[in-house]
Amino acid sequence: MSTVVPALEAVVEAAGPRVRDLMETLERRLLELVSGHGELLARHAGATIAAGGKRLRPLTVFVAGGEATDSQGLVRAGAAVELVHSATLVHDDVLDAADLRRGRPTVVATGGRELAIATGDLLFSRAFAELSGNRDAGQLRVLSAASSALARGELLQRADAFDATISVERYLLRCELKTARLFEAACRLGARQAPGDGEGVARALGRFGRSIGLAFQVLDDVLDVSGPAARTGKRRGTDLLDGTVTLPLILARERDPALARLDTRSLIGGADAERVCDAIEATGALEQARARALEIVATAKADLPALDQRRAGALRLIADGVVERYG
Amino acid sequence: MSTVVPALEAVVEAAGPRVRDLMETLERRLLELVSGHGELLARHAGATIAAGGKRLRPLTVFVAGGEATDSQGLVRAGAAVELVHSATLVHDDVLDAADLRRGRPTVVATGGRELAIATGDLLFSRAFAELSGNRDAGQLRVLSAASSALARGELLQRADAFDATISVERYLLRCELKTARLFEAACRLGARQAPGDGEGVARALGRFGRSIGLAFQVLDDVLDVSGPAARTGKRRGTDLLDGTVTLPLILARERDPALARLDTRSLIGGADAERVCDAIEATGALEQARARALEIVATAKADLPALDQRRAGALRLIADGVVERYG
Repeated sequence: MSTVVPALEAVVEAAGPRVRDLMETLERRLLELVSGHGELLARHAGATIAAGGKRLRPLTVFVAGGEATDSQGLVRAGAAVELVHSATLVHDDVLDAADLRRGRPTVVATGGRELAIATGDLLFSRAFAELSGNRDAGQLRVLSAASSALARGELLQRADAFDATISVERYLLRCELKTARLFEAACRLGARQAPGDGEGVARALGRFGRSIGLAFQVLDDVLDVSGPAARTGKRRGTDLLDGTVTLPLILARERDPALARLDTRSLIGGADAERVCDAIEATGALEQARARALEIVATAKADLPALDQRRAGALRLIADGVVERYG
Repeated sequence: MSTVVPALEAVVEAAGPRVRDLMETLERRLLELVSGHGELLARHAGATIAAGGKRLRPLTVFVAGGEATDSQGLVRAGAAVELVHSATLVHDDVLDAADLRRGRPTVVATGGRELAIATGDLLFSRAFAELSGNRDAGQLRVLSAASSALARGELLQRADAFDATISVERYLLRCELKTARLFEAACRLGARQAPGDGEGVARALGRFGRSIGLAFQVLDDVLDVSGPAARTGKRRGTDLLDGTVTLPLILARERDPALARLDTRSLIGGADAERVCDAIEATGALEQARARALEIVATAKADLPALDQRRAGALRLIADGVVERYG
């Protein structure tokens, strides 16, 4: 199936033909959603949605949904989660464009910025409109909580910009808000539609989602330092230049006094950033951060509640997929 | 009551003590909402919410709600509508800041822009989270439709920027999306909670809301040209410099060949814009646009469905309040 990347093909395979059908229906629905609201949305959001790639979050909804029989309900939830994710990407692009002055290669015209804000707002709105089709206010509560967390994570990131003295706990809180809570929502939205799941199972699946989301963000932050650029599509050290202090730097500062003294505001371009990435790597902080993420994933897998074998197997493969992508 | 501006005090008076209580509860709830989600939200959104002023949209929810007995449900709906409105204001500020190059006096630091995007996103998310407390997916459908319309209106405005050849119909469509649909939602959210209202009444109240919202935007656009600046808090002709082509210019171009030839991209500052405002005013286009708005309001009042006298009276006073503010 063309829309599923190789790392996740194993998940779809394990989850069975129904999930494959759901993934295909999701693609059609996302296309409908971006083409059905005016030419402008299609032009600006279409590219983001089309380039969206992995569809890891909707896939998580579908797998967590188990034997749910309302395919349309699952697809709406999957689309809603993907729309919130896309809205965040579109708004992140605006913030990145604002960083041009820091030597970054992104170029967005002013018109682009204005359109990006409105496009992101529209994607957010469409997410809630789509999910409201399920006529379950509880699902909307789950999504709005995750969406609030995302924005709080962004605010926290701005508040902590260039502050290398932040604690590991504060860093993990930011990851939880920015990334983990939407994965938690994906699991809960699926579980809520699964027949026979009690609130206990839904909560446990929510915790699982939160853990793999957390690991996802930590590994993403490792990759920003480790590169290679050919794999990530951006230069190493982008976070350093942005002022986004992540786990590798936090850990490396404990081991390398020069890094502990470094003010990342003084970095003026990609070459500077790459030198700092090398210094971070030399401390062993990348292995340490990676190990932390792997431990989170292993614990999440071990703590999965009692589920039928197909569903549990597919969820474990999602967890592996998160790791494998960065392995 | 300190939170109600004089023009709307008559509405509260006519609507009775219950609506006055609701307005007071709303203020407390809004304060809770912005202070309950981290210091950053309080700092950045608090100012917007606090300066929010009229609370015309929540007041519309409460009056449309008639004898609804679930005060908490009405307050949630009122707060949600106000949060969506505030989110839009916060994101508008970002766009305005991008227009500094056009000689506008707005100054927002780069950090301000990044925070504003995340703050707006958080206000949007909180709006849906707040409304989901009413456990009625239908209400969330109404709000998400309005919120989508708002974003589409922004996109349309950017697409039509500096295009003075747009039709009156296209201009009115933009006003409907940007402004009228949220007033429609306010009416529908209230009506949905009113006991004994059939779907017919809810639809009719929705149309009423849409009409007064449309008039509100047209009158706002007239005010941008007419000033005085002391009243609007901004220089005359701000829309002209932004490239936002509004009804006064569209109508004036039919009467003044010099205006018909004008490319507003060539305006380079406030003094230029004021001269164009004077030229528009000299054609009589402002009176014409104002008359159009008054006609929309008069029709909306005449078309109100059969309602008890107190509710109908208060709704008519809201319509008058929209006009009076700009009269």
